[in-house]
Amino acid sequence: MSHFDRPTTPLPSETVPRTVLLPNFDKRGGVCVAIAQDAGTGQILMQGYADRAAYLETLATGEAVYYSTSRKKRWKKGETSGHVQIVKDVLIDCDGDAIVYVVEQCGSGACHTNAKSCFYRDFQGRPSERVQEGESEKLETIDTPVAGRLVTDP
Amino acid sequence: MSHFDRPTTPLPSETVPRTVLLPNFDKRGGVCVAIAQDAGTGQILMQGYADRAAYLETLATGEAVYYSTSRKKRWKKGETSGHVQIVKDVLIDCDGDAIVYVVEQCGSGACHTNAKSCFYRDFQGRPSERVQEGESEKLETIDTPVAGRLVTDP
Repeated sequence: MSHFDRPTTPLPSETVPRTVLLPNFDKRGGVCVAIAQDAGTGQILMQGYADRAAYLETLATGEAVYYSTSRKKRWKKGETSGHVQIVKDVLIDCDGDAIVYVVEQCGSGACHTNAKSCFYRDFQGRPSERVQEGESEKLETIDTPVAGRLVTDP
Repeated sequence: MSHFDRPTTPLPSETVPRTVLLPNFDKRGGVCVAIAQDAGTGQILMQGYADRAAYLETLATGEAVYYSTSRKKRWKKGETSGHVQIVKDVLIDCDGDAIVYVVEQCGSGACHTNAKSCFYRDFQGRPSERVQEGESEKLETIDTPVAGRLVTDP
């Protein structure tokens, strides 16, 4: 056989070791703030947390993994819903305690309300996206002076 | 004098009370994560924290105010540097414990390194913006398998 017929078995990129920065997870009890941002639109989709294992699993798999501070366990986004986040880039801030996952959001969105983003309402409760009734936390409201530039309707 | 000559004293918008949502500050010891996003480009500029007073001062003044968890005090962004953040909108997430300040960043940027954004480097330490030498936290590096989609150069 000619050398053109030789089977080739390229090394999968997933197994190529890379030198990566480790955020300072010790600074806040083992977790860093992890923010998911839409790679296409720049929209902020959600804010969660990542521990060292979640961060490294995200880098290794290219899908966003978080750490649930309420359930105190690994939380692979979309593991049950299928609404995974394909990670296009990962950014770390100047003091090393916050992470941005730049992602392609699969499915209806990042939020459990089915909104594209968890940030679907403004400071007056005006919806910026349609959400499912009663699935968002009801928050206390108060009357307070508000700057004019913040109360002009969209 | 005719009624046209009467002095008028319009009510400043800052003193008009508005009903606003209060994030759930009790959930995490009195502070919520506060993310600053550029109103023009959507770039995530920084991540800090806000307590109830900082949030309400931000709404009342239209300039971003945070709470420094290290100095344990109010932190008006740009108070000393002049690099204030003019707040165009404020968003709250579904479970009410994270805030997005949509801002116009004044001055060189949001970061103490003079970068526009604190998220000026990726997970491999590759700069996404020019920063001042030695002003960013040096982070531990490790060799780890990384998904191919995460290691293609920008």
